[in-house]
Amino acid sequence: MSHSETDHPDTVVGAAGSGAVADPAVRAELTRLRESIDNIDAAVVHMLAERFKCTQQVGRLKAEHRLPPADPEREARQIARLRNLAENARLDPAFAEKLLNFIIAEVIRHHETIAGSGGTGE
Amino acid sequence: MSHSETDHPDTVVGAAGSGAVADPAVRAELTRLRESIDNIDAAVVHMLAERFKCTQQVGRLKAEHRLPPADPEREARQIARLRNLAENARLDPAFAEKLLNFIIAEVIRHHETIAGSGGTGE
Repeated sequence: MSHSETDHPDTVVGAAGSGAVADPAVRAELTRLRESIDNIDAAVVHMLAERFKCTQQVGRLKAEHRLPPADPEREARQIARLRNLAENARLDPAFAEKLLNFIIAEVIRHHETIAGSGGTGE
Repeated sequence: MSHSETDHPDTVVGAAGSGAVADPAVRAELTRLRESIDNIDAAVVHMLAERFKCTQQVGRLKAEHRLPPADPEREARQIARLRNLAENARLDPAFAEKLLNFIIAEVIRHHETIAGSGGTGE
């Protein structure tokens, strides 16, 4: 049985949601943890909004100065660094790498959307 | 042409990496932006390390008190809230939702790994 703070529909095993937790102490503890999760998620969303601002500027800079959009050495350094940071924070390094790739895919999508509308990475 | 701070190997169009940027002012600006990207990535990795600590505690709590692992109402509230936060931060709400799903998939994987080894979500 998996137990996750995921609310994944496939893993529902009963009709009771969190609102149905009878023990007030348990309910309070669950609320406390969920509030932390919500705070963290808000922080991450805002961090990533800033990150996309940076990558947009990088895209513009590279376009203006006819620099190659990709830099495999830079990417290799980013991955190695994030894996190391993740290990020190006791986060799965493979997850950190997957996350970076997930974000990078979005950056590419952004830039492709811009390119499709005739822009130059702005 | 896409221009991204992604260093995606498929999009290499020249041999020059960032080290080959001739103009010192451009190189300095690129370095400044990349340092911000690296700082943000470090912050996100550390935030997510904390998030997984929270979800592990939630998993343990739910297991101890025989609560259903999933809570579709909670998930719907999380998605709606994050999409709203993303919009205010000028981040694509669809990306915020995809990101939450990406993280949730990892939480499920964590808990399944634990369950597979005979644990109860700890």
